Amino acid sequence: MMKFTIFLIFAVVFPAKYASPQSCVIDTLIDGKIQAAIDSKVHSILAKRRLICTTAFSHGANAYCPSGYLATGCACGMACGSWDIRGDATCHCQCANIDWTSARCCKVAIVG
Amino acid sequence: MMKFTIFLIFAVVFPAKYASPQSCVIDTLIDGKIQAAIDSKVHSILAKRRLICTTAFSHGANAYCPSGYLATGCACGMACGSWDIRGDATCHCQCANIDWTSARCCKVAIVG
Amino acid sequence: MMKFTIFLIFAVVFPAKYASPQSCVIDTLIDGKIQAAIDSKVHSILAKRRLICTTAFSHGANAYCPSGYLATGCACGMACGSWDIRGDATCHCQCANIDWTSARCCKVAIVG
Repeated sequence: MMKFTIFLIFAVVFPAKYASPQSCVIDTLIDGKIQAAIDSKVHSILAKRRLICTTAFSHGANAYCPSGYLATGCACGMACGSWDIRGDATCHCQCANIDWTSARCCKVAIVG
Repeated sequence: MMKFTIFLIFAVVFPAKYASPQSCVIDTLIDGKIQAAIDSKVHSILAKRRLICTTAFSHGANAYCPSGYLATGCACGMACGSWDIRGDATCHCQCANIDWTSARCCKVAIVG
Repeated sequence: MMKFTIFLIFAVVFPAKYASPQSCVIDTLIDGKIQAAIDSKVHSILAKRRLICTTAFSHGANAYCPSGYLATGCACGMACGSWDIRGDATCHCQCANIDWTSARCCKVAIVG
Protein backbone atom coordinates (compact mmCIF):
# COMPACT_ATOMS: atom_id res chain seq x y z
CA MET A 1 0.00 0.00 0.00
CA MET A 2 2.83 2.36 0.88
CA LYS A 3 4.50 1.63 -2.44
CA PHE A 4 1.29 2.24 -4.32
CA THR A 5 0.83 5.63 -2.65
CA ILE A 6 4.33 6.70 -3.65
CA PHE A 7 3.61 5.40 -7.11
CA LEU A 8 0.44 7.47 -7.34
CA ILE A 9 2.30 10.60 -6.30
CA PHE A 10 4.81 10.17 -9.07
CA ALA A 11 2.51 8.93 -11.81
CA VAL A 12 -0.57 11.12 -11.30
CA VAL A 13 0.06 14.05 -8.95
CA PHE A 14 3.44 15.17 -10.32
CA PRO A 15 2.48 15.19 -14.00
CA ALA A 16 -0.66 17.15 -13.13
CA LYS A 17 1.42 19.72 -11.26
CA TYR A 18 3.82 20.08 -14.16
CA ALA A 19 0.95 20.49 -16.57
CA SER A 20 -0.24 23.89 -15.36
CA PRO A 21 3.01 25.89 -15.63
CA GLN A 22 3.50 24.30 -19.06
CA SER A 23 0.17 25.58 -20.32
CA CYS A 24 1.02 29.07 -19.04
CA VAL A 25 4.28 29.08 -20.95
CA ILE A 26 2.48 27.94 -24.10
CA ASP A 27 -0.17 30.57 -23.57
CA THR A 28 2.33 33.43 -23.36
CA LEU A 29 4.28 31.95 -26.22
CA ILE A 30 1.23 31.84 -28.48
CA ASP A 31 0.24 35.40 -27.64
CA GLY A 32 3.73 36.62 -28.48
CA LYS A 33 3.86 34.66 -31.69
CA ILE A 34 0.48 35.94 -32.83
CA GLN A 35 1.30 39.58 -32.14
CA ALA A 36 4.67 39.40 -33.86
CA ALA A 37 3.32 37.59 -36.89
CA ILE A 38 0.38 39.96 -37.29
CA ASP A 39 2.48 43.08 -36.89
CA SER A 40 4.96 42.12 -39.56
CA LYS A 41 2.41 40.65 -41.96
CA VAL A 42 -0.13 43.45 -41.71
CA HIS A 43 2.45 46.18 -42.03
CA SER A 44 4.12 44.55 -45.02
CA ILE A 45 0.80 44.12 -46.81
CA LEU A 46 -0.46 47.60 -45.93
CA ALA A 47 2.77 49.22 -47.06
CA LYS A 48 2.02 47.90 -50.55
CA ARG A 49 -1.50 49.29 -50.52
CA ARG A 50 -1.30 52.54 -52.43
CA LEU A 51 -3.24 54.98 -54.53
CA ILE A 52 -2.47 54.47 -58.20
CA CYS A 53 -3.73 56.69 -61.02
CA THR A 54 -3.79 56.72 -64.78
CA THR A 55 -5.20 59.00 -67.47
CA ALA A 56 -7.81 58.10 -70.09
CA PHE A 57 -7.94 60.30 -73.18
CA SER A 58 -10.42 60.37 -76.03
CA HIS A 59 -11.43 62.51 -78.97
CA GLY A 60 -14.97 63.76 -78.43
CA ALA A 61 -16.90 64.66 -75.29
CA ASN A 62 -16.49 61.44 -73.26
CA ALA A 63 -13.46 59.68 -71.72
CA TYR A 64 -13.74 56.31 -69.98
CA CYS A 65 -11.62 55.10 -67.05
CA PRO A 66 -10.30 51.51 -67.23
CA SER A 67 -12.24 48.88 -65.29
CA GLY A 68 -11.70 49.17 -61.51
CA TYR A 69 -10.69 52.83 -61.64
CA LEU A 70 -12.80 55.82 -60.58
CA ALA A 71 -12.67 59.28 -62.17
CA THR A 72 -11.27 61.88 -59.74
CA GLY A 73 -11.24 64.82 -62.18
CA CYS A 74 -11.64 65.69 -65.87
CA ALA A 75 -10.02 67.99 -68.42
CA CYS A 76 -11.49 69.25 -71.67
CA GLY A 77 -10.23 70.74 -74.92
CA MET A 78 -11.05 74.32 -75.98
CA ALA A 79 -10.07 75.59 -72.50
CA CYS A 80 -13.42 74.29 -71.23
CA GLY A 81 -13.71 73.67 -67.45
CA SER A 82 -17.34 72.54 -67.37
CA TRP A 83 -17.65 68.79 -66.98
CA ASP A 84 -19.44 66.09 -65.06
CA ILE A 85 -18.68 62.49 -64.11
CA ARG A 86 -21.22 59.87 -65.16
CA GLY A 87 -21.48 56.50 -63.43
CA ASP A 88 -18.27 57.04 -61.39
CA ALA A 89 -15.86 56.36 -64.25
CA THR A 90 -16.81 58.47 -67.28
CA CYS A 91 -15.78 62.08 -67.85
CA HIS A 92 -18.14 64.19 -69.95
CA CYS A 93 -17.17 67.66 -71.17
CA GLN A 94 -20.15 69.98 -71.55
CA CYS A 95 -18.93 72.68 -73.97
CA ALA A 96 -20.36 72.44 -77.49
CA ASN A 97 -18.33 70.68 -80.19
CA ILE A 98 -15.61 69.67 -77.72
CA ASP A 99 -12.53 68.24 -79.47
CA TRP A 100 -11.06 66.13 -76.66
CA THR A 101 -11.79 64.90 -73.13
CA SER A 102 -9.48 63.31 -70.59
CA ALA A 103 -10.28 61.51 -67.35
CA ARG A 104 -7.98 61.22 -64.36
CA CYS A 105 -8.61 57.72 -63.00
CA CYS A 106 -7.49 56.32 -59.62
CA LYS A 107 -7.91 53.27 -57.42
CA VAL A 108 -6.40 51.76 -54.28
CA ALA A 109 -4.30 48.74 -55.21
CA ILE A 110 -1.47 46.49 -54.07
CA VAL A 111 1.78 47.83 -55.51
CA GLY A 112 5.12 45.97 -55.72
CA MET B 1 15.79 0.03 -4.85
CA MET B 2 15.99 -1.55 -8.24
CA LYS B 3 12.20 -1.33 -8.61
CA PHE B 4 12.19 2.30 -7.59
CA THR B 5 14.82 3.15 -10.22
CA ILE B 6 12.76 1.52 -12.93
CA PHE B 7 9.76 3.33 -11.60
CA LEU B 8 11.55 6.66 -11.81
CA ILE B 9 12.55 6.01 -15.38
CA PHE B 10 8.93 5.46 -16.39
CA ALA B 11 7.28 8.11 -14.25
CA VAL B 12 9.73 11.01 -14.55
CA VAL B 13 12.33 10.49 -17.28
CA PHE B 14 10.02 9.18 -20.03
CA PRO B 15 7.35 11.88 -19.72
CA ALA B 16 10.09 14.51 -19.80
CA LYS B 17 11.52 12.99 -22.95
CA TYR B 18 8.13 12.94 -24.62
CA ALA B 19 7.49 16.53 -23.64
CA SER B 20 10.11 18.08 -25.89
CA PRO B 21 9.04 16.61 -29.25
CA GLN B 22 5.46 17.47 -28.30
CA SER B 23 6.29 21.13 -27.78
CA CYS B 24 8.09 21.19 -31.15
CA VAL B 25 5.02 19.85 -32.90
CA ILE B 26 2.85 22.44 -31.15
CA ASP B 27 5.34 25.15 -32.03
CA THR B 28 5.26 24.35 -35.74
CA LEU B 29 1.50 23.89 -35.63
CA ILE B 30 0.98 27.32 -34.09
CA ASP B 31 3.26 29.02 -36.59
CA GLY B 32 1.38 27.43 -39.45
CA LYS B 33 -2.02 28.30 -38.01
CA ILE B 34 -1.02 31.92 -37.43
CA GLN B 35 0.36 32.41 -40.93
CA ALA B 36 -2.66 30.82 -42.60
CA ALA B 37 -5.18 32.72 -40.49
CA ILE B 38 -3.44 36.07 -41.02
CA ASP B 39 -3.06 35.58 -44.76
CA SER B 40 -6.72 34.83 -45.32
CA LYS B 41 -8.03 37.42 -42.87
CA VAL B 42 -5.79 40.29 -43.97
CA HIS B 43 -6.39 39.66 -47.64
CA SER B 44 -10.15 39.41 -47.23
CA ILE B 45 -10.30 42.66 -45.27
CA LEU B 46 -7.91 44.49 -47.60
CA ALA B 47 -9.83 43.36 -50.67
CA LYS B 48 -12.81 45.29 -49.33
CA ARG B 49 -10.76 48.44 -48.80
CA ARG B 50 -11.37 50.56 -51.85
CA LEU B 51 -11.46 54.09 -53.18
CA ILE B 52 -15.02 55.32 -53.39
CA CYS B 53 -16.08 58.65 -54.90
CA THR B 54 -19.19 60.76 -55.17
CA THR B 55 -20.07 64.14 -56.68
CA ALA B 56 -21.38 67.19 -54.81
CA PHE B 57 -23.18 69.80 -56.91
CA SER B 58 -24.41 73.24 -55.97
CA HIS B 59 -25.71 76.41 -57.56
CA GLY B 60 -23.29 79.24 -56.87
CA ALA B 61 -19.50 79.31 -56.48
CA ASN B 62 -19.03 76.68 -53.72
CA ALA B 63 -19.68 72.94 -53.54
CA TYR B 64 -19.20 70.91 -50.35
CA CYS B 65 -18.10 67.28 -50.11
CA PRO B 66 -20.01 65.04 -47.65
CA SER B 67 -18.36 64.42 -44.27
CA GLY B 68 -15.39 62.07 -44.51
CA TYR B 69 -14.74 62.76 -48.19
CA LEU B 70 -11.95 64.88 -49.67
CA ALA B 71 -12.22 66.94 -52.86
CA THR B 72 -9.98 65.53 -55.62
CA GLY B 73 -11.06 67.94 -58.37
CA CYS B 74 -13.67 70.58 -59.22
CA ALA B 75 -15.79 71.63 -62.20
CA CYS B 76 -17.42 74.99 -62.85
CA GLY B 77 -20.23 76.38 -64.99
CA MET B 78 -19.59 78.91 -67.78
CA ALA B 79 -16.71 76.74 -69.10
CA CYS B 80 -14.56 78.05 -66.24
CA GLY B 81 -11.48 75.99 -65.28
CA SER B 82 -10.15 78.23 -62.51
CA TRP B 83 -10.91 76.86 -59.07
CA ASP B 84 -9.38 76.13 -55.70
CA ILE B 85 -10.10 73.71 -52.87
CA ARG B 86 -10.68 75.19 -49.43
CA GLY B 87 -10.20 73.17 -46.26
CA ASP B 88 -9.78 69.88 -48.13
CA ALA B 89 -13.46 69.39 -48.92
CA THR B 90 -14.88 72.55 -50.52
CA CYS B 91 -14.63 73.43 -54.21
CA HIS B 92 -14.64 77.11 -55.05
CA CYS B 93 -14.98 78.37 -58.63
CA GLN B 94 -13.20 81.66 -59.25
CA CYS B 95 -14.88 83.08 -62.37
CA ALA B 96 -17.26 85.99 -61.75
CA ASN B 97 -20.99 85.30 -61.42
CA ILE B 98 -20.48 81.52 -61.65
CA ASP B 99 -23.79 79.65 -62.05
CA TRP B 100 -22.79 76.23 -60.71
CA THR B 101 -19.91 74.37 -59.02
CA SER B 102 -19.36 70.67 -58.56
CA ALA B 103 -16.87 68.83 -56.37
CA ARG B 104 -15.51 65.36 -57.01
CA CYS B 105 -15.22 63.77 -53.55
CA CYS B 106 -13.36 60.56 -52.64
CA LYS B 107 -12.33 58.51 -49.61
CA VAL B 108 -10.89 55.10 -48.81
CA ALA B 109 -13.58 52.88 -47.28
CA ILE B 110 -14.62 49.29 -46.64
CA VAL B 111 -16.85 48.18 -49.48
CA GLY B 112 -19.13 45.10 -49.52
CA MET C 1 4.15 -9.14 -13.07
CA MET C 2 0.77 -7.94 -11.85
CA LYS C 3 2.34 -4.91 -10.19
CA PHE C 4 4.26 -4.06 -13.35
CA THR C 5 1.06 -4.18 -15.44
CA ILE C 6 -0.69 -1.78 -13.06
CA PHE C 7 2.40 0.39 -13.16
CA LEU C 8 2.34 0.48 -16.94
CA ILE C 9 -1.32 1.49 -16.96
CA PHE C 10 -0.61 4.46 -14.73
CA ALA C 11 2.72 5.53 -16.17
CA VAL C 12 2.14 5.06 -19.89
CA VAL C 13 -1.53 4.49 -20.78
CA PHE C 14 -3.10 7.19 -18.58
CA PRO C 15 -0.78 10.02 -19.59
CA ALA C 16 -1.35 9.13 -23.24
CA LYS C 17 -5.11 9.23 -22.74
CA TYR C 18 -4.92 12.63 -21.06
CA ALA C 19 -2.72 13.94 -23.81
CA SER C 20 -5.32 13.93 -26.56
CA PRO C 21 -8.09 16.04 -24.96
CA GLN C 22 -5.36 18.47 -23.85
CA SER C 23 -4.15 19.01 -27.41
CA CYS C 24 -7.75 19.60 -28.54
CA VAL C 25 -8.20 22.31 -25.94
CA ILE C 26 -4.94 23.92 -27.00
CA ASP C 27 -5.98 23.70 -30.65
CA THR C 28 -9.29 25.47 -30.09
CA LEU C 29 -7.61 27.97 -27.79
CA ILE C 30 -5.02 28.87 -30.42
CA ASP C 31 -7.62 29.27 -33.15
CA GLY C 32 -9.65 31.60 -30.95
CA LYS C 33 -6.61 33.62 -29.92
CA ILE C 34 -5.47 34.04 -33.51
CA GLN C 35 -8.87 35.16 -34.79
CA ALA C 36 -9.37 37.65 -31.96
CA ALA C 37 -5.88 39.10 -32.23
CA ILE C 38 -6.07 39.48 -36.01
CA ASP C 39 -9.52 41.05 -35.96
CA SER C 40 -8.58 43.74 -33.48
CA LYS C 41 -5.14 44.41 -34.93
CA VAL C 42 -6.15 44.52 -38.58
CA HIS C 43 -9.16 46.71 -37.93
CA SER C 44 -7.22 49.17 -35.80
CA ILE C 45 -4.49 49.49 -38.43
CA LEU C 46 -6.91 49.72 -41.35
CA ALA C 47 -8.99 52.36 -39.61
CA LYS C 48 -5.95 54.63 -39.72
CA ARG C 49 -5.41 54.05 -43.43
CA ARG C 50 -7.00 56.99 -45.18
CA LEU C 51 -6.93 59.14 -48.28
CA ILE C 52 -5.11 62.40 -47.62
CA CYS C 53 -4.83 65.26 -50.11
CA THR C 54 -2.98 68.53 -50.45
CA THR C 55 -2.75 71.28 -53.07
CA ALA C 56 0.37 72.37 -54.95
CA PHE C 57 0.28 75.84 -56.50
CA SER C 58 2.74 77.55 -58.82
CA HIS C 59 3.02 80.57 -61.05
CA GLY C 60 3.41 79.42 -64.63
CA ALA C 61 2.08 76.40 -66.51
CA ASN C 62 3.32 73.57 -64.26
CA ALA C 63 2.53 72.56 -60.65
CA TYR C 64 4.33 69.70 -58.90
CA CYS C 65 2.85 67.37 -56.26
CA PRO C 66 5.04 66.63 -53.19
CA SER C 67 6.91 63.31 -53.21
CA GLY C 68 4.62 60.34 -52.64
CA TYR C 69 1.48 62.13 -53.83
CA LEU C 70 -0.31 61.65 -57.14
CA ALA C 71 -2.18 64.37 -59.06
CA THR C 72 -5.94 63.67 -59.13
CA GLY C 73 -6.96 66.88 -60.89
CA CYS C 74 -5.65 70.30 -61.98
CA ALA C 75 -6.85 73.89 -62.09
CA CYS C 76 -5.55 76.73 -64.26
CA GLY C 77 -5.63 80.51 -64.25
CA MET C 78 -7.42 82.52 -66.98
CA ALA C 79 -10.52 80.27 -66.60
CA CYS C 80 -8.67 77.60 -68.57
CA GLY C 81 -9.92 73.99 -68.20
CA SER C 82 -7.50 72.31 -70.60
CA TRP C 83 -4.72 70.48 -68.78
CA ASP C 84 -2.84 67.22 -68.65
CA ILE C 85 -0.95 65.31 -65.95
CA ARG C 86 2.67 64.41 -66.72
CA GLY C 87 4.45 61.56 -64.94
CA ASP C 88 1.63 61.05 -62.43
CA ALA C 89 2.46 64.05 -60.27
CA THR C 90 2.77 67.16 -62.44
CA CYS C 91 -0.12 69.33 -63.61
CA HIS C 92 0.37 71.17 -66.88
CA CYS C 93 -2.04 73.84 -68.07
CA GLN C 94 -2.28 74.07 -71.85
CA CYS C 95 -3.68 77.58 -72.50
CA ALA C 96 -1.15 80.11 -73.81
CA ASN C 97 0.57 82.45 -71.36
CA ILE C 98 -1.07 80.81 -68.35
CA ASP C 99 -0.53 82.78 -65.13
CA TRP C 100 -0.96 80.03 -62.55
CA THR C 101 -1.45 76.27 -62.23
CA SER C 102 -2.52 74.22 -59.24
CA ALA C 103 -2.41 70.48 -58.69
CA ARG C 104 -4.67 68.51 -56.38
CA CYS C 105 -2.44 65.81 -54.88
CA CYS C 106 -3.53 62.72 -52.94
CA LYS C 107 -2.14 59.52 -51.43
CA VAL C 108 -3.23 56.71 -49.12
CA ALA C 109 -1.46 57.04 -45.77
CA ILE C 110 -1.60 56.09 -42.10
CA VAL C 111 -3.36 58.86 -40.22
CA GLY C 112 -3.34 59.40 -36.44
